[in-house]
Amino acid sequence: MGSVSDLPVLQKAAIVLNDFQTPFEMLALSAHRTPAEVEDFATNARARGVEAIIAAAGMSAHLPGVIAALTTLPVIGLPINSSLDGVDALLSIVQMPPGIPVATVGVNAAVNAALLSIQILAANDETLREKLSAYKLALKDKIVTANRDLSAIKYPFKTN
Amino acid sequence: MGSVSDLPVLQKAAIVLNDFQTPFEMLALSAHRTPAEVEDFATNARARGVEAIIAAAGMSAHLPGVIAALTTLPVIGLPINSSLDGVDALLSIVQMPPGIPVATVGVNAAVNAALLSIQILAANDETLREKLSAYKLALKDKIVTANRDLSAIKYPFKTN
Amino acid sequence: MGSVSDLPVLQKAAIVLNDFQTPFEMLALSAHRTPAEVEDFATNARARGVEAIIAAAGMSAHLPGVIAALTTLPVIGLPINSSLDGVDALLSIVQMPPGIPVATVGVNAAVNAALLSIQILAANDETLREKLSAYKLALKDKIVTANRDLSAIKYPFKTN
Amino acid sequence: MGSVSDLPVLQKAAIVLNDFQTPFEMLALSAHRTPAEVEDFATNARARGVEAIIAAAGMSAHLPGVIAALTTLPVIGLPINSSLDGVDALLSIVQMPPGIPVATVGVNAAVNAALLSIQILAANDETLREKLSAYKLALKDKIVTANRDLSAIKYPFKTN
Amino acid sequence: MGSVSDLPVLQKAAIVLNDFQTPFEMLALSAHRTPAEVEDFATNARARGVEAIIAAAGMSAHLPGVIAALTTLPVIGLPINSSLDGVDALLSIVQMPPGIPVATVGVNAAVNAALLSIQILAANDETLREKLSAYKLALKDKIVTANRDLSAIKYPFKTN
Amino acid sequence: MGSVSDLPVLQKAAIVLNDFQTPFEMLALSAHRTPAEVEDFATNARARGVEAIIAAAGMSAHLPGVIAALTTLPVIGLPINSSLDGVDALLSIVQMPPGIPVATVGVNAAVNAALLSIQILAANDETLREKLSAYKLALKDKIVTANRDLSAIKYPFKTN
Amino acid sequence: MGSVSDLPVLQKAAIVLNDFQTPFEMLALSAHRTPAEVEDFATNARARGVEAIIAAAGMSAHLPGVIAALTTLPVIGLPINSSLDGVDALLSIVQMPPGIPVATVGVNAAVNAALLSIQILAANDETLREKLSAYKLALKDKIVTANRDLSAIKYPFKTN
Amino acid sequence: MGSVSDLPVLQKAAIVLNDFQTPFEMLALSAHRTPAEVEDFATNARARGVEAIIAAAGMSAHLPGVIAALTTLPVIGLPINSSLDGVDALLSIVQMPPGIPVATVGVNAAVNAALLSIQILAANDETLREKLSAYKLALKDKIVTANRDLSAIKYPFKTN
Repeated sequence: MGSVSDLPVLQKAAIVLNDFQTPFEMLALSAHRTPAEVEDFATNARARGVEAIIAAAGMSAHLPGVIAALTTLPVIGLPINSSLDGVDALLSIVQMPPGIPVATVGVNAAVNAALLSIQILAANDETLREKLSAYKLALKDKIVTANRDLSAIKYPFKTN
Repeated sequence: MGSVSDLPVLQKAAIVLNDFQTPFEMLALSAHRTPAEVEDFATNARARGVEAIIAAAGMSAHLPGVIAALTTLPVIGLPINSSLDGVDALLSIVQMPPGIPVATVGVNAAVNAALLSIQILAANDETLREKLSAYKLALKDKIVTANRDLSAIKYPFKTN
Repeated sequence: MGSVSDLPVLQKAAIVLNDFQTPFEMLALSAHRTPAEVEDFATNARARGVEAIIAAAGMSAHLPGVIAALTTLPVIGLPINSSLDGVDALLSIVQMPPGIPVATVGVNAAVNAALLSIQILAANDETLREKLSAYKLALKDKIVTANRDLSAIKYPFKTN
Repeated sequence: MGSVSDLPVLQKAAIVLNDFQTPFEMLALSAHRTPAEVEDFATNARARGVEAIIAAAGMSAHLPGVIAALTTLPVIGLPINSSLDGVDALLSIVQMPPGIPVATVGVNAAVNAALLSIQILAANDETLREKLSAYKLALKDKIVTANRDLSAIKYPFKTN
Repeated sequence: MGSVSDLPVLQKAAIVLNDFQTPFEMLALSAHRTPAEVEDFATNARARGVEAIIAAAGMSAHLPGVIAALTTLPVIGLPINSSLDGVDALLSIVQMPPGIPVATVGVNAAVNAALLSIQILAANDETLREKLSAYKLALKDKIVTANRDLSAIKYPFKTN
Repeated sequence: MGSVSDLPVLQKAAIVLNDFQTPFEMLALSAHRTPAEVEDFATNARARGVEAIIAAAGMSAHLPGVIAALTTLPVIGLPINSSLDGVDALLSIVQMPPGIPVATVGVNAAVNAALLSIQILAANDETLREKLSAYKLALKDKIVTANRDLSAIKYPFKTN
Repeated sequence: MGSVSDLPVLQKAAIVLNDFQTPFEMLALSAHRTPAEVEDFATNARARGVEAIIAAAGMSAHLPGVIAALTTLPVIGLPINSSLDGVDALLSIVQMPPGIPVATVGVNAAVNAALLSIQILAANDETLREKLSAYKLALKDKIVTANRDLSAIKYPFKTN
Repeated sequence: MGSVSDLPVLQKAAIVLNDFQTPFEMLALSAHRTPAEVEDFATNARARGVEAIIAAAGMSAHLPGVIAALTTLPVIGLPINSSLDGVDALLSIVQMPPGIPVATVGVNAAVNAALLSIQILAANDETLREKLSAYKLALKDKIVTANRDLSAIKYPFKTN
């Protein structure tokens, strides 16, 4: 994350990764305040066994692009809403020049950033694939339950 | 791709994939016009050996999200500019609800979509990783050459 | 609705439909979480006697378009404001490709979605047409009453 | 249409309506330049047998809303791009106040406006419903053909 | 005003008009809910002695344009923020087609709407012109006083 | 006008003013390049007999506001599209702080700026009022003629 | 600052300037309400020893541009969010015409405005340059400390 | 510049710098493609005698912020329009986090970037200050000449 103020958003990602029993580390690294640490992290990540990186930042959100410049690992960009509804961060992250992609998710979409990293790891991990399928089923089940609740709401002329 | 009119953009992705000698298939599939074919494709993709999906669409760009709903493979969303500078497609693709991520790249950013898919495949492929590193070096070399050209432009008071 | 969190908005539509004594059913269906249920619903709706569908969704609001792809019934798209002031949902719903229209109403405009569905049903229902006319008169009467209240506000130099 | 300069867009709607053998009339009516004619048209439309109205306008696109105020027929609003990429017209049309809905389609989406009007008429017309189903099949067939063309494009390492 | 819910904004205009001792009337009139009343008002305004009209509306803000269509009096459009930060209302009001101008002020800028109407009336009214000049002086005096307060804030290294 | 590059837009205003036989002068004055000339112009305008000012500018369009600060005459702001579709100029002109109104028309809407100035002058000029009414009739006649042309377009199944 | 209501934002700049022991003065000056005072200030600033000017304003934020027109000192424009998320102020400040630059910082970015002015003064001031370097180190240290806190958060499957 | 494709815009800056006889160097440096070269350049710039840096970039324009992170020199950010009207580059450059300012100019505003750098250098250079004043006079003279041309345009009822 680009700033510890992003922690409340990032914790949602941590919970998903933890639920999937995916080992992860959580770091504050700023493209602007700790450029040397960012460089260290990004250039050594693959050698240390990292398989995917989630980089979250707000405003002029340079962190995901700067990391992506320094590694060939897939970098997931997570725009944080700290100004302008997060549109500044979204555009700063997604509109990367040809050659340096960042896999961008929605504004504050920490859960999706975590799931995307798990989908990437799942290429080599049958257990993760099964957990992803189970996760999809659980999403569906929530809606099935919701429909039961909805059908219980009574209006005089409602038919179902 | 959601429509064959997107082919000129998508061909840039095909060229990159081909240069990296990454096997791929190219299909037109519309979330709105061929929903059954989309379902077939998405639900069977992993079993057929597909490891990543690039889904490109313009306007109300539903294709990437609809495919992502039906598979646990990573889905790369490529917004096509066919109206409103592509902002409609970008928002339709990136702002996915929690649970169903789409790895979005920039508007018309077909090269980055291809590179992102290669980064995902490279997890298991040392050769691809080396090619990605070489690709980064080539990007750098282009700029080094450009600087040689720039330094040749003469202004009386320019110093370099 | 794409998510039960949209219920507070949708209830305004339910109240209008109920006031017009228009039979309706209310379901949670997600283009991304329950694609099979959406397909079932949309392909069978006309045969079950449904005459118009209101599909509400926020963010990457794919539900209305996905339903419209699977039926020839008129589909009313209701963008829900759950991020970016609802502009993401509005553009995701209204900018449909040629061939698959969605009749879009304003952000969170549940009352208008309900009234539009009633206008469609009113083609064959003289009673509904009369109720619609009465509804318009009631809107007018509210403003007439409001003017009475406004004219009671006193400013020293106001003339009416 | 609000101005004859909108005719090139509207003709796409006329062609669709004609292909479906749906009787229609085409008028220029301006909320601002011919308000009395708009009032005449809107208040008498149902009595004259009109079943749906497509109202197209650009910029401060008031025509659809002004017509919707004067009739209980469904009014389809078609935003025309004559400035600001059509975003001004889109917002002017879709963001109607509660009580007066306009069924809005995308910017310049004349084909969808026509299809939506046909979907509304199809409630009472089995033939129209069959034509709509056939139209959907034709959209699908175009994509099937497109895939044949796409699979013919050769890249050394492409697999399909 | 298009709706009585706009009253809190409009009262700021009323206070300015009252302070300038400019006779005015305050009415709720909706382009969509009371079109006949709007027509009555607009077509008879000049004959009744009205010299300028302030028309306030939110969302698809059609009221100012519809009034402007029916009179040759100057119409001041006041966009009300009731959705999308008032951008929908601003564009609906300001982007009028050639031939029917609306003198638009900022979002919720009721004070400026009132002052603009007074500037128009001041053409024939020396007293109003003097009051406008006095009003400008008062604005300046507030800032002069503010500077006195600002210079009282102490920072060790501040110079003024 | 803020720059002579705005002349092609402003000439449309000149033609309208000329057609209405309204005396006018046309000046290039820049809030940023000739601030002293702007001050001279604005502070002396009323004494010189000017009754309304049209101020056109693009980008950071400060000219209308700067003039409005220096006079109690009504100032009509005309945003010129020289970047960002004119949205920068529109917001720079219309969003004036309380106390200093600018009567803003649409982007590049020179005809409306001219007509608005004529509406202001018409308060004291019966002839101008009659010309404005005639101008409205001419707008209407153009549409009546257009309808004749539209009804001549033949489609096999068109009814009018 | 354009208005004393901007003081809460500007105080953050004052604190930074004070911490760097940079002498400064703080004034309210409005391009629209005190144009003569703005002119006085801007034309005499350099002679009075001012080396950089921070001009903050919201809405139609003309103050920075108007000052920049009247001096050859560097003018730092600080957009204040008082409407439309500050986008109106940002565009009003940054989109200056060729010839009159304003050095714009982010919306409400008072700290950055202060630091930028210090960077400009630091050209001639070795002490300021050292303080700027120390400031950068302190930013870095905050993140190093933050990482210590982050690594203390426990999740069952987290590795660091 | 972030890419040699930005050269046509940057040359306008070079011409201004050359006209002011300000020594400069022109380099292509990409935050994403040549991060090591960017780091070299930024960390050594002050020691090499650089007094101000203009950093131009389009899309996810990270170059200005990345340079600003590595130096205490003033960095002028120049957003290049290569997508989305340059709004993505503008927001990526201007919305920097607290602590690392970038002095942003308008989209493609290369002349203003050059002038701003000259204003910064002029602190220590009386000759540059005089040239800046002369430049302002020349801007004014162009407008004076323009007015002569404008007054030569004849309309029957124009008075000046």
